[in-house]
Amino acid sequence: MEAPAPLKHGRVSVNQKLQQLFHPEAVAVIGASATPSKWGFGILHNLIQGQFPGPIYPINLKEKEILGRKAYPSLAETPGPVDLAVIVVPPEKVIPAVLDCGRKGVAAAVIITAGFGEVGAEEMRRQEELSRVIRQTGMAAIGPNCQGVMSAQSRLFAQFLWLFPPAGKISIVSQSGNVGGSLMGRGMAFGIGFSKFVSSGNEAVTKCHELLEYFGEDPETEVVMAYLEGVPEGRAFFRALKRVTPRKPVLILKGGVTEAGSRACASHTGILAGESDLFASACRQAGAVLVDTLDDLFYSAVTFASQPLPRTNRVGIVTWGGGWGVLAADACVREGLCLPALPAEVIAELNEFLPSRWSHNNPVDLAAGGGPGVLSRTLELMVKSPAFDGVVQLGIGISSFLRFMTQSSFFFGHADRAKVRETLLSMAVESDKKFSEKVMRLSRETGKPILSASDTASTPSEDNVVMQTFRQEGKIIYPTPFHAARCLGHLARYARFRQKIKGEKPGQG
Amino acid sequence: MEAPAPLKHGRVSVNQKLQQLFHPEAVAVIGASATPSKWGFGILHNLIQGQFPGPIYPINLKEKEILGRKAYPSLAETPGPVDLAVIVVPPEKVIPAVLDCGRKGVAAAVIITAGFGEVGAEEMRRQEELSRVIRQTGMAAIGPNCQGVMSAQSRLFAQFLWLFPPAGKISIVSQSGNVGGSLMGRGMAFGIGFSKFVSSGNEAVTKCHELLEYFGEDPETEVVMAYLEGVPEGRAFFRALKRVTPRKPVLILKGGVTEAGSRACASHTGILAGESDLFASACRQAGAVLVDTLDDLFYSAVTFASQPLPRTNRVGIVTWGGGWGVLAADACVREGLCLPALPAEVIAELNEFLPSRWSHNNPVDLAAGGGPGVLSRTLELMVKSPAFDGVVQLGIGISSFLRFMTQSSFFFGHADRAKVRETLLSMAVESDKKFSEKVMRLSRETGKPILSASDTASTPSEDNVVMQTFRQEGKIIYPTPFHAARCLGHLARYARFRQKIKGEKPGQG
Repeated sequence: MEAPAPLKHGRVSVNQKLQQLFHPEAVAVIGASATPSKWGFGILHNLIQGQFPGPIYPINLKEKEILGRKAYPSLAETPGPVDLAVIVVPPEKVIPAVLDCGRKGVAAAVIITAGFGEVGAEEMRRQEELSRVIRQTGMAAIGPNCQGVMSAQSRLFAQFLWLFPPAGKISIVSQSGNVGGSLMGRGMAFGIGFSKFVSSGNEAVTKCHELLEYFGEDPETEVVMAYLEGVPEGRAFFRALKRVTPRKPVLILKGGVTEAGSRACASHTGILAGESDLFASACRQAGAVLVDTLDDLFYSAVTFASQPLPRTNRVGIVTWGGGWGVLAADACVREGLCLPALPAEVIAELNEFLPSRWSHNNPVDLAAGGGPGVLSRTLELMVKSPAFDGVVQLGIGISSFLRFMTQSSFFFGHADRAKVRETLLSMAVESDKKFSEKVMRLSRETGKPILSASDTASTPSEDNVVMQTFRQEGKIIYPTPFHAARCLGHLARYARFRQKIKGEKPGQG
Repeated sequence: MEAPAPLKHGRVSVNQKLQQLFHPEAVAVIGASATPSKWGFGILHNLIQGQFPGPIYPINLKEKEILGRKAYPSLAETPGPVDLAVIVVPPEKVIPAVLDCGRKGVAAAVIITAGFGEVGAEEMRRQEELSRVIRQTGMAAIGPNCQGVMSAQSRLFAQFLWLFPPAGKISIVSQSGNVGGSLMGRGMAFGIGFSKFVSSGNEAVTKCHELLEYFGEDPETEVVMAYLEGVPEGRAFFRALKRVTPRKPVLILKGGVTEAGSRACASHTGILAGESDLFASACRQAGAVLVDTLDDLFYSAVTFASQPLPRTNRVGIVTWGGGWGVLAADACVREGLCLPALPAEVIAELNEFLPSRWSHNNPVDLAAGGGPGVLSRTLELMVKSPAFDGVVQLGIGISSFLRFMTQSSFFFGHADRAKVRETLLSMAVESDKKFSEKVMRLSRETGKPILSASDTASTPSEDNVVMQTFRQEGKIIYPTPFHAARCLGHLARYARFRQKIKGEKPGQG
């Protein structure tokens, strides 16, 4: 028997098909529903709410109109070409829907429907049949068993998650929809943007390595985050990884690293988790940044997207309080960072304006001495010293601190304490803004990463002027010394990898 | 030469003196100031603001009155007895102030003033002289170089930090004032109370082991947190630790575990950090709970203060979303917890009401199936099954989720979307409240810990009904699966230690 001729998109490269997936001109939702509790409603709703600029075609046998859009009984009857079809029909109707897509010349499909390889052996056979049919059409296809796809620069929110993060530089491939949601939700809370999100589900056709490869070429993507339970094609995955990591950092959180976790993966995506020690060391060798937790994944992605790479692992610490300085020093060393002694000229200059009780050591502990001007001068000296290629700065944000402290108490001895509070707060806000701008300017001028941590200024809020200033450059305030040290550790390890790739010694280039 | 006769408190035990320190009837602030930028103002301000019920005597040579309180030119001139003196005078005036205290018969002093052992050799001699003089008076003495002392049940806020957490069961000894501030600030943000906080500074006289020993006896303290850079008297410390841990969990975060961190300690408190590997293993042997980070310290203290100890390390996981379930399984196993397979009868019962796509495995992954009623029944089955002695529950809080999601989008197709949103939100709030109460009831009834994690419900806020319900029992929602697994790991390890002490096998008692 002759194989059916490949349809319209058969000879196009995967990257070109994914390009159409993420930048479609028209989208159809096969299985769009008028019932708010159904996924076919949510997906359509979010596409419209996300302000997708091109035509959106709801496909539904009965309805004439859904959410103000004309509905069509079949894909064939839509009036124009369709690049992307989102499929939200029951499992037994997925293959017919895919065949319709093939006939229509759709470039890419996102198959939301679950009930395939993740369920059992019989359903796995259904998934294999689905893959075969999709391959015949030549389409790229995400899923099945996924939450959808987001492409912020195209204003494409073909996803079940009601999350509309701003456009940014970070792209995500996640074999879990809810892990993807955790990441985008955090991004939104912090005002951090994303470029693309793919909930890749069971990866019946389009695999994570193809998405990785695409993100590697994508000019809108500068940092890649991946939550992976397993890679269906190991060799292809590491080949793709090796191609991308010399140009862009790829951050990987691996799920299923224990036997119990791996069992959980099997019933989640049906992808085998594989041997995790081998996987981890192969990832590291290929230049990936391996992270341990959701926090680690989120904070390090934001760091890579907003901080320059350090030339070496030599780090200076500037702190207002001793304990945080000690914890930062410990955390930096544990991350393989080096804390050189202060050069004599830095000590001499600091002695000129710091109160005598300062630590005379790296960490530079101001011991709560002096005002923001003193902190600013200290930081500048440290950042500009050739002894250090990155700086951790602890205790940013007087205004957030003041605001938090004065929730419960404020100078009740004053006749007009509300006014005093407001005056002090507005001075603190001014000073915080100035200092935050200085931190960012110093980093730009020297090309060195400066990571700031604070208890109170690390929570995003409307009146957090530090975070709002940092946000202008996609930066963040880290909540503890550990977070800052960990992220600087990732930056330094990746910088070293890049130097090795180029055959450079540490600190060159 | 004859030693001077011990003064009034010389024959009283350290515990009795500390009892007076934390429950004084009258407090003097030696070095109280009318200038808001001075520490002598801040301390007095906070004592008054904290509503200390007894007399507060500002001691100041020039002022007649500070913050509405009559000031006295010397301690000797105060009209009544003084149990606690807070000393905030310049370093050279500290010893004379201590001698005044001795003559007055003060039971305990808190010496805020810095400029002693943390600075250098000469200042260390000054500290040794100070210790000698204090010992002659027989007083307990905290500091020097500290931020003060808090005792919430006595409404004593003899501290520089403007933090007034509610009264609770957790007591803190911290060799860093700002680490203590981080912990109490977090507590306040989450509505978690503390009993006592001691910023122990250089520990010239009263050492951390004496505080530990006191907390061990203190009926107001159920959980002890310690941030330690070093222990001045190792043997005494481990002896104290061994006496306390069989009755109360002692959580230790060690600063200065690396050489660079240890150097930082030297200029911070002047206490030698010591050999950290030896220290860690000795702590573990003595039954302490060793934590790695500030987050770990805070979350585990809250956990010990609010959750029962599990009989064994056998854990069940219930999750709405697959990825979080996988990550929780991995994290639990890494913590040494065991994830037994689901008993046949649990599978059979779950099959009766769960949609068929559920995981049929531990973690029980509902795959976003069913409403809160289904989640509630599932959780109950798991908690009540003899196969599990603790449960991690992921995805609590529909209302916070809905509130977050609908910030950017909500069913724009509805004619009256604001009203629909409100109706749905109030239904979700009701359902969240009911479910939260059920979680707590199940834990009480079975005596098993249930740790709940959520992206959106883990941030404290006025409209977070889940957190507010949990807070009534001092409980918290963990921000990620890792936090929940880590804290359950600590509980299980400590439970095992307690069983061993009693000579029990795992799961007895």
